[in-house]
Parts: sequence; structure tokens; C-alpha cells
Amino acid sequence: MSTDCIFCKIVAGEIPATKVYEDEDVIAFNDIHPIAPVHFMIVPKEHIESLASAEEKHQALLGKILLLAPKLAKQQGLKGFRTMINTGREGGQEVFHLHVHVFGGGASLPKT
Amino acid sequence: MSTDCIFCKIVAGEIPATKVYEDEDVIAFNDIHPIAPVHFMIVPKEHIESLASAEEKHQALLGKILLLAPKLAKQQGLKGFRTMINTGREGGQEVFHLHVHVFGGGASLPKT
Repeated sequence: MSTDCIFCKIVAGEIPATKVYEDEDVIAFNDIHPIAPVHFMIVPKEHIESLASAEEKHQALLGKILLLAPKLAKQQGLKGFRTMINTGREGGQEVFHLHVHVFGGGASLPKT
Repeated sequence: MSTDCIFCKIVAGEIPATKVYEDEDVIAFNDIHPIAPVHFMIVPKEHIESLASAEEKHQALLGKILLLAPKLAKQQGLKGFRTMINTGREGGQEVFHLHVHVFGGGASLPKT
């Protein structure tokens, strides 16, 4: 855990979040600034700064997250969805704890 | 291989593409309709229709693709980048062979 990290604090239960899923490896919760009618994030409990910081030992965890995305999207009522990871400040990353955005719903899903 | 699939044809060398990487499991090539100065896709050689069609047996492959993204992005000169998977027509998917977009560069990376 990184003591300054907002997502580590959510994992630890120190900051509230609307959880949509949790197991021993990951937590998923709604984005507080949604860009679509359904918008949650899947976050590894381990503090991995970004996708660029992930190592070979995280391969199974990363695969697990991608397999989880369609299951949770379906549970949230989505027929189709977009999965997005921003890496680095130049890639639009704002919280430096790896997180996978999953969003969809509505007719106006942005083209990019 | 799916005989009607454009990405299977790229994998088979039947349709040209500007490859940025290839190994026994995946191929990566530039998007012909780039939305950023650098925009390539990482594609499993196996025909998996979408992320929603991926199974437990694909976990390692999916993890491998995510670990590969930052390596290829760096090779392409990106400091930061965005990784995106569109799933289902309602999720913006246009080619029904799983592909992970990786893009970045320039000042105008779209917010979503």
C-alpha cells in the first residue's frame, strides 16, 4: 500500500466508493466523474503505479482483469462497452495506481 | 483462422499491414485510421471474436498483451499512451477479432 494513494485508501476502506465487485486481488468501483451512463474502474489491490510499471509477475493479474471486464459490464447491464487504460501523464493518467476504466451505455459513446 | 476476418488475413500475410511487432502469439500493426500521431493495435493471432468471447484459457495471452503495450509504445517513441478495447457493436467494436488499440503522441489526446 502507498499511503498517499487514493485508490490504496479505497482498497483499505478508508475512503468510500460505490463498489461493484471485490475479491482477493482486485476491487471495482464506480468512477466519481463518469463519462458514460455506466462507468466503473477495475483496480488491482496491489499498488502498481501504471501499466508501464507492471512486471512479468503481474501477467496473470492483468489477464484476470481483462476477463473480469465483460462479466462486470454485463452485470451492470451493458451490451457493449469500452475498456481503457491511461498510462503516464502524457497518456491522460491522473491517479498513479493502475486502473482499467470500463464504460458504456447510451447512444453517444465517444468515438475515441 | 476465420476466413472472412480481415485481421486473420493480416496474420496470414494475405493483406499487408505496417507491422510494429510479431511473435508466435500476437501481431501488432498500425491502425489505417489513426486517431493520434502513433496508433497501433495488438492482435492475438488466434481468432477471438471480442473480449466478451475470451475464456479462462486466454488469461495469460491477455496479460501478455497488456505487458507488451508499454514496451511497444516506448519503442514507438511514446512517453505516455492510452490502451483501449472496444467490445461489441454498442462498445464501438468494428472488427470482430479482438484487438487492443494503443495510441498517443501530440498534445490533443482526447479526454475519453
